[in-house]
Amino acid sequence: MEPLKGRDLLSLADLSASELQDLLQRAAQLKSGEIKLRCNKVLGLLFSKASTRTRVSFTVAMYQLGGQVIDLNPNVTQVSRGEPLEDTARVLDRYLDILAIRTFKQADLKTYAEFTQIPVINALTDEEHPCQVLADLLTIQECFGSLAGHTLAYFGDGNNMANSLMLGCALVGMNVRIATPEGYAPDAEIMARAKAIAAGKTEVLVTRDPLEAAKGANVLYTDVWASMGQESEADNRIPLFQPYQLNTELLGHADKDAIVLHCLPAHRGEEITHEVMEGSHSRIWDQAENRMHAQKALLASLLGCD
Amino acid sequence: MEPLKGRDLLSLADLSASELQDLLQRAAQLKSGEIKLRCNKVLGLLFSKASTRTRVSFTVAMYQLGGQVIDLNPNVTQVSRGEPLEDTARVLDRYLDILAIRTFKQADLKTYAEFTQIPVINALTDEEHPCQVLADLLTIQECFGSLAGHTLAYFGDGNNMANSLMLGCALVGMNVRIATPEGYAPDAEIMARAKAIAAGKTEVLVTRDPLEAAKGANVLYTDVWASMGQESEADNRIPLFQPYQLNTELLGHADKDAIVLHCLPAHRGEEITHEVMEGSHSRIWDQAENRMHAQKALLASLLGCD
Amino acid sequence: MEPLKGRDLLSLADLSASELQDLLQRAAQLKSGEIKLRCNKVLGLLFSKASTRTRVSFTVAMYQLGGQVIDLNPNVTQVSRGEPLEDTARVLDRYLDILAIRTFKQADLKTYAEFTQIPVINALTDEEHPCQVLADLLTIQECFGSLAGHTLAYFGDGNNMANSLMLGCALVGMNVRIATPEGYAPDAEIMARAKAIAAGKTEVLVTRDPLEAAKGANVLYTDVWASMGQESEADNRIPLFQPYQLNTELLGHADKDAIVLHCLPAHRGEEITHEVMEGSHSRIWDQAENRMHAQKALLASLLGCD
Repeated sequence: MEPLKGRDLLSLADLSASELQDLLQRAAQLKSGEIKLRCNKVLGLLFSKASTRTRVSFTVAMYQLGGQVIDLNPNVTQVSRGEPLEDTARVLDRYLDILAIRTFKQADLKTYAEFTQIPVINALTDEEHPCQVLADLLTIQECFGSLAGHTLAYFGDGNNMANSLMLGCALVGMNVRIATPEGYAPDAEIMARAKAIAAGKTEVLVTRDPLEAAKGANVLYTDVWASMGQESEADNRIPLFQPYQLNTELLGHADKDAIVLHCLPAHRGEEITHEVMEGSHSRIWDQAENRMHAQKALLASLLGCD
Repeated sequence: MEPLKGRDLLSLADLSASELQDLLQRAAQLKSGEIKLRCNKVLGLLFSKASTRTRVSFTVAMYQLGGQVIDLNPNVTQVSRGEPLEDTARVLDRYLDILAIRTFKQADLKTYAEFTQIPVINALTDEEHPCQVLADLLTIQECFGSLAGHTLAYFGDGNNMANSLMLGCALVGMNVRIATPEGYAPDAEIMARAKAIAAGKTEVLVTRDPLEAAKGANVLYTDVWASMGQESEADNRIPLFQPYQLNTELLGHADKDAIVLHCLPAHRGEEITHEVMEGSHSRIWDQAENRMHAQKALLASLLGCD
Repeated sequence: MEPLKGRDLLSLADLSASELQDLLQRAAQLKSGEIKLRCNKVLGLLFSKASTRTRVSFTVAMYQLGGQVIDLNPNVTQVSRGEPLEDTARVLDRYLDILAIRTFKQADLKTYAEFTQIPVINALTDEEHPCQVLADLLTIQECFGSLAGHTLAYFGDGNNMANSLMLGCALVGMNVRIATPEGYAPDAEIMARAKAIAAGKTEVLVTRDPLEAAKGANVLYTDVWASMGQESEADNRIPLFQPYQLNTELLGHADKDAIVLHCLPAHRGEEITHEVMEGSHSRIWDQAENRMHAQKALLASLLGCD
């Protein structure tokens, strides 16, 4: 998979359809033990937000590749002292082999990518969460044996998850339906990009009707209604988002073998019920584990390990 | 030492007498260099409290085994965002090989153990501090060549240290005497458990009289009078605890070859005098070092390294 | 380079002239790949101040030596709980192989060194910053092929950088000129020490005239006007320090092949202009990278790696 060596992953759309497929296959092979890769490199984690899954899954993935990790949280770096991002980026570029960044603005991520020669990975911005979608697609592929032709329905906030799911599904030939309350539709530009990728061959639907989205779907997906930094809005959002709750009733409209995914942390009783989360359709814990396998494949590919 | 592989260590009483003896022997062999173990695994440290010795000794132990460590302090995890422990536990279980937890409630520790398949280690709760006692017993064994038949006297607060010392001494056939002010006796249930283990063959004494405890003892042990989170009570406690201070006078009542232990950090002039801490009976720095050796043996055993 | 094994580096003046030259040569050889060293040891980082370059460069240096690092920031250690430094030092001594400390008082650093047997490295105090000067000298040597006989001019605050530059330049036979506003001259005792080392053979000049310092100099060097902890003084300092700004005009007084260095983070428009920082004389990014190479040579030498 040399083509990815040295590149950045800022958006899922930075990958071609075949590059994405190759990456998912490599992740599956790493998980099964069919292949084993070693890479004695150093990954920097530059995270402006709290994180369990992203931090731990990246760290363990790098450890299992034989590499090392350095945690650059803002409490311990000069970034908080008002040093321009450009300067921090140029210095880190001299020390590290690869950098995963969790921040707010996509523009900041792009600045880091511009001022470094090492690969930069989007580990979550307000706009996208491509690494999560790599894990999601790996999970769907494990469950159904393939991706193309299946339908994913997402319920709730048209946030970074919705954005990346639209792009990811379009790239692998899945239909994607995003059901959100009025005023919470995903980014129009990313939706247009997803439609361009789908090229009319698969569905990219944004709707206010959760039942239209759920009907016959193979994958039901949700995320918290108020992401980090939006907690103060949570109370206002709850009544508005209630019809989009992933509960047994909604599940009844999906395909009988449908699986349920959630990128965690979950607020039981809000965006998902306890019953559905712990029920037989849930693949949520496998999905969480797959963060590690998917990111291991990504790290290995960007670093050119073999 | 296969029997420990895959198990949890939530309480010292999770070990049988012979398992504890084997573990101490293994720790001594690792320290002397007689055996060398390698284990390419990942330890997670989930610490809700500040820590020097516990964090560093676990980390270096794991490094020396050839393993890796990931620090999961609450500032950087979602645990602080109100995610249920059960969910955090299930996700960490998918990424890590072993987990050491420092928290307040024993019940939270048990929840982690219940929702994970990997070994969970009690790295300090309000109820117990088994890893410290492993180091303590290793130190006593080094000093006297054996454990059974010796007498340990503990002075001060009937806290987690007192609890775990009662269990540990009972398991290895040592007499244990806990001298505390009224109202600060150790946990009654754990005392009962220690007495059941001792089965009348060795002494498990709780007393308000420090001289009764010290008389002819081989090991004098103390801990801070106000543990983390109890600092506001410190001023009230000082007059009450004064008679239990580990000073030269008290030491005069012990065996002439008695050793002095303290799990640190120490407040000189409160629970222990500067003279005793720096005096010829003190084995406090060896005891601190032994955290690393004891925990290395524990990690290796629970992980099944060889 | 056995002579350095087991020693501390608290001040640059702890090194003899030939030891410093050997260390710089070793750093250059490590950077070029001419030599490769392995050292399976554990470095502790005890940093009381925020840090990007120092933390990352030490960490990656140790990783590239095959060693491990443990971050002991005060949020996660007992040092913040009022434990005496002496006790913390004695415990860390039992666990770690080497310790890099970033703190305020040189006296605290000396306490650590006194109570540990492992090597202790000054990773920044109010008095000195020897590791930065190792990187600076390595950069100058790379640019000019040699050190002796060249002239370094430093502009701004007579702080720890000024102190260590005086000592470093004197040791390698470079002339050093420090231009500061009245009241901001470097430490008189360190200046005397630098003059003693220079022994009249090279220049150690402290002046209030920036042009006198710049005239024909080969290296122009500056640092922020208000270091961490002095931010409140920044507004008062700006007018006073303005004549010492490293700008195109000042550069015009230096040698035509002069290089510009800055230890970062930089405040463009204050101590240095954007034009000079990004201009053709700047070697600032190479200088930052050289932290890693210089410290790798230092770690390897103090640990006795080969």
